[in-house]
Amino acid sequence: NTNATSSYGNRGMSLEEDINISNEYYLANGLAVIHKKPTPLQVVKVDYPKRSAAIIKEAYFQQASTTDYNGVFQGKYIDFEAKETKNKSSFPLKNFHKHQIDHMRQVLSQNGVCFALLRFSISDEVYLLDAKHLCTYWSNQESGRKSIPKKEIEDLGFLVPLGFHPRVDYLRIVKDVYF
Amino acid sequence: NTNATSSYGNRGMSLEEDINISNEYYLANGLAVIHKKPTPLQVVKVDYPKRSAAIIKEAYFQQASTTDYNGVFQGKYIDFEAKETKNKSSFPLKNFHKHQIDHMRQVLSQNGVCFALLRFSISDEVYLLDAKHLCTYWSNQESGRKSIPKKEIEDLGFLVPLGFHPRVDYLRIVKDVYF
Ligand SMILES: [Mg+2]
Ligand SMILES: [Mg+2]
Repeated sequence: NTNATSSYGNRGMSLEEDINISNEYYLANGLAVIHKKPTPLQVVKVDYPKRSAAIIKEAYFQQASTTDYNGVFQGKYIDFEAKETKNKSSFPLKNFHKHQIDHMRQVLSQNGVCFALLRFSISDEVYLLDAKHLCTYWSNQESGRKSIPKKEIEDLGFLVPLGFHPRVDYLRIVKDVYF
Repeated sequence: NTNATSSYGNRGMSLEEDINISNEYYLANGLAVIHKKPTPLQVVKVDYPKRSAAIIKEAYFQQASTTDYNGVFQGKYIDFEAKETKNKSSFPLKNFHKHQIDHMRQVLSQNGVCFALLRFSISDEVYLLDAKHLCTYWSNQESGRKSIPKKEIEDLGFLVPLGFHPRVDYLRIVKDVYF
């Protein structure tokens, strides 16, 4: 298969894996410093065996109080969440949690660059949608749609170039849109 | 005891606890969005009991690849590490790890605001020292001192005001020094 886009689509990597590898590329090339935050765990019981590393024997997953990714690009604070859907024509808002939206609002009010990377996995398209739009759709949920029509994501957002190095080149969009 | 500084010193809270509470204050008052990153854990074994939350049965502490704190203040990326010592006249460099210094260098090269908060716990003083100075002392370790003399921290750094709300008001220094 000599078609990059199509073989990319066939790899079956998660969006998160692709972003992590893109971030490694950005870091290695001095382009940006952006990391995924570790999943917060509540540690209840730890054993300290002699002559070896501490072993956590009981712990629970906790809900993160922020988005998954943050870091710095040319002095500016960058913050985003990555989500994917198998839907074809809209992106369900249930993929987001209230605390993530709250965090995005806080970041926006500090003039941070804040967005979501939304992948439609069937068509293998990734869009960057600014957090202000996402927050508006979120607020309007009560009285209306529980998802964002793809057409509106195409209009309000930006299609992110996909490739091999980096796989999901969202920094190119960030540079165009926020600088 | 009506002396705030002295009763503060007697509380015996760790620097990290004080910073976490200061960050909550900044967040609640819309001043900055700065969080401590969760400790990364390598999860090996998870049980999924019926009708209750997943239990992690085996996991290990991993070394973080970044500093402990980051976030956004008025659009700028803020990144720092917090450390304390019981030494009176110098701050030992062994409190820092190579990967933290590497991360600080990366952040500096992206023009992020990057520093260390250094507490001398006996005298209960906290200094903000820019990462560029810390990195210089770190590099010079091979051929010289394994610690930073307190006198030089006083000269190159900034004494952080301590109080109750917020406890460690490092943002006041950040505003003066980086804006
Ligand atoms: Mg996520
Ligand atoms: Mg630390």
